[in-house]
Amino acid sequence: MSDMYDPRTFQARTFHDATEAFAENSDTPRAYLERCLEVIAQKEPTVQAFATFNEESARAAADASGKRWKAGSPLSPIDGMPVGVKDLLETKDMPTQMGCEAYTGNFPKNDNAAVWALREAGAVIAGKTVTAELGGNHPGPTTNPFDPTRTAGGSSSGSAAAVAAGMLPAAIGTQVGGSIIRPAAFCGNFALKPSQGGLHRGERQATSMSTHGPHAGCFEDMWRVAIEIAKRTGGDPGRAGLIGPDNAPAPVKPERLIVLETEGWDRVDAASHEAFAQLRTRLEAEGISISGRYGNTAVDALETSIANATHVCGMITAWENRWALRNLINRHPDGVSQRTQDTVAKAGAMTPDDYRGLLRDREHARLCHADLRSHADAVVTFACPGPAPLWPGDRQGEPLNPRPTGDAVFNYPSSMLGAPVVTIPMMAVSGLPVGLQIMGQPNEDARVTAIAQWIHESLSPAVVT
Amino acid sequence: MSDMYDPRTFQARTFHDATEAFAENSDTPRAYLERCLEVIAQKEPTVQAFATFNEESARAAADASGKRWKAGSPLSPIDGMPVGVKDLLETKDMPTQMGCEAYTGNFPKNDNAAVWALREAGAVIAGKTVTAELGGNHPGPTTNPFDPTRTAGGSSSGSAAAVAAGMLPAAIGTQVGGSIIRPAAFCGNFALKPSQGGLHRGERQATSMSTHGPHAGCFEDMWRVAIEIAKRTGGDPGRAGLIGPDNAPAPVKPERLIVLETEGWDRVDAASHEAFAQLRTRLEAEGISISGRYGNTAVDALETSIANATHVCGMITAWENRWALRNLINRHPDGVSQRTQDTVAKAGAMTPDDYRGLLRDREHARLCHADLRSHADAVVTFACPGPAPLWPGDRQGEPLNPRPTGDAVFNYPSSMLGAPVVTIPMMAVSGLPVGLQIMGQPNEDARVTAIAQWIHESLSPAVVT
Repeated sequence: MSDMYDPRTFQARTFHDATEAFAENSDTPRAYLERCLEVIAQKEPTVQAFATFNEESARAAADASGKRWKAGSPLSPIDGMPVGVKDLLETKDMPTQMGCEAYTGNFPKNDNAAVWALREAGAVIAGKTVTAELGGNHPGPTTNPFDPTRTAGGSSSGSAAAVAAGMLPAAIGTQVGGSIIRPAAFCGNFALKPSQGGLHRGERQATSMSTHGPHAGCFEDMWRVAIEIAKRTGGDPGRAGLIGPDNAPAPVKPERLIVLETEGWDRVDAASHEAFAQLRTRLEAEGISISGRYGNTAVDALETSIANATHVCGMITAWENRWALRNLINRHPDGVSQRTQDTVAKAGAMTPDDYRGLLRDREHARLCHADLRSHADAVVTFACPGPAPLWPGDRQGEPLNPRPTGDAVFNYPSSMLGAPVVTIPMMAVSGLPVGLQIMGQPNEDARVTAIAQWIHESLSPAVVT
Repeated sequence: MSDMYDPRTFQARTFHDATEAFAENSDTPRAYLERCLEVIAQKEPTVQAFATFNEESARAAADASGKRWKAGSPLSPIDGMPVGVKDLLETKDMPTQMGCEAYTGNFPKNDNAAVWALREAGAVIAGKTVTAELGGNHPGPTTNPFDPTRTAGGSSSGSAAAVAAGMLPAAIGTQVGGSIIRPAAFCGNFALKPSQGGLHRGERQATSMSTHGPHAGCFEDMWRVAIEIAKRTGGDPGRAGLIGPDNAPAPVKPERLIVLETEGWDRVDAASHEAFAQLRTRLEAEGISISGRYGNTAVDALETSIANATHVCGMITAWENRWALRNLINRHPDGVSQRTQDTVAKAGAMTPDDYRGLLRDREHARLCHADLRSHADAVVTFACPGPAPLWPGDRQGEPLNPRPTGDAVFNYPSSMLGAPVVTIPMMAVSGLPVGLQIMGQPNEDARVTAIAQWIHESLSPAVVT
């Protein structure tokens, strides 16, 4: 049974437009939270977005925020905002179980840097959202808010679904391959995967391609969550980190865009291609010049350099995670899924030289991407290969579905390039969201957000049934 | 009471020259270990190099190694080598207490990547060596093997002392500021601080300047430990990692060297300056051209760029560690020393913009260092500002000594530059070791080792009483 999604009429939960009422005392953060809790009570049994929820602590934090707004001294524009945190990030008041049996009951009593920053900004850390096991492919119980027979995407399944279901105005996801953008695109969210290193990952520094980023119901909330974290944590060790204005950057019309038709382009269904083609036509109708790989050798070089992005990213990350995963399996031989064990086995067959080769491939792709600076303002492509697929669950005795949370094929390139991307809900196909992905150059997170905002404001979404 | 040190006669414990006897079965790894244990039994009450020692497990590992040598199938050239591991790195069979009260009893049952690699290479993980608290300045109980009234240096105090006392042929240290090279220099060891990212740090990825590296009694053991780790772990995520031959690179005579007279040069005592001047004269007598900042603008630019290295490195690392340290203090308000609390307070007063400014200073220094490629084969300077200082312990009611494990002033530059350095025992002053430091360009670890080896082989040490 499907709740038909239409981006032209869909009303997401937003927060930035509530704070004026907090200041005037005609609404309160506590009342805002209670409205969220009502939706959660109603939808959580089906959506299953949360691994843990801490109502008591959330109510106390909302009340404390209310006092600050009343006194005219909120800690930040997101003071009082209920935020979900992917269950990979440590939280001092909730367990961190990572969707993994081996971490059952894991409760380190620490706050991840982003969580600490959110609390310092006054945000209400409402609950831990479901993650695919260890941020990989093995799925948790979350269902797509627009059709419970489909995946919400992964690995930030719960963060994407909680926002799309209107349970929360924002939630933190993480991406190694496609774990922020893919579920956001399947759920019709606004989401930012920052430049590599943009937001301090706290204890989660094990891999060279991973980022924390916000899911939200609108640009303003998405941006504010990201920048309020960055203002307090800065970027990862050795990185300058996300920089930008306190409010979402004003829309900027791009003059030239590039459409990337990466790996996976030919796996997208006809209806989604039709929706994308409509958007392309609308962009051109606005006078924006659009080019692709044919006739532009710089674009072609980038396309070629990322043609194998799924493999390159998958192997780099498998290698980088192998010490931690081998320790985990050593301690808990039966506490890790077969999918994760398979990944560890793949990494076990690699050598440091194999890894060096993959790093060279990645560096080459980054050089090719940098070359596009003089060719276009940004890149656009699908954020996901069509609407969220059906997910009936693993069937005993049958081979494991390699992509139970959907295919991250359109997300590996930006992860490989360390580039910022935004997904915006610009398409609906068969009543389900399909995201449009805008990619900028590394550290141009504010610029790519501004361009995405212009596209969202200026174009009508493409709806194909 | 002092055991006068003379580098011309000092006999360090070595391992590489024992393996032929293992192969011929005229000696065994178990017998080698027992010889180490005898020295430990004799000297440990004074030296206090170990936080934990696992005799039973070490004997079992040595016996297993003996079977492999007997069967003609050792896992590597360091199969059977007893190695100490600084108590910052996780070990699955021993606690990891980090010299910090808050970590008392901490026992995660994981192996750090380097420890895993050492076990895969057949090495005997003999014990955990004392570290200054959390790798910082607050000292543990270790004393200098050549004079128990003096510090062994820090933070890798126990690793340095265990090797210098002949307890072990090698031990793993870690360096953020000067924590490998300073104690090695105070203890007369050979030690390598690899290029930043050279050896995979496993779970210890929190900071942008830190490396794991070996202390040993000779070049060959030093190099073999490093390369056998690197062959199995590669470098840090995103880094190519240490590359080089299986045996220590053959000596290479440098044509041109640069002497850096960095921050701290004027704090070195006259006798140590005299020893250094003797070495300089001996290098020149070999036909090696030596230049410094006067008359060479490239050297002067580097000297200027690192003039403030102590401050820049200290603040960068304080900022990078602040989330973890704040969590630790939050959980254990009284479990952390005043020295560490002071560091956290300093970081707490910083902003992301302050951090970005420090990163720019660091990047500028790296550019200046890269410029030296066309001016010299390597850089030489002190590895420590004279012999190990006296350390009578903190005195209640008196201000804390800011450098109880000695001054890392000569070590911050290479940490800041991400450059490989080797310290070699080329000086003795008042019967105590003073190390000579050779620095190369990033990723030229093998080359700088080869140059250091030539200097060690070709020059007689400078002994000043």
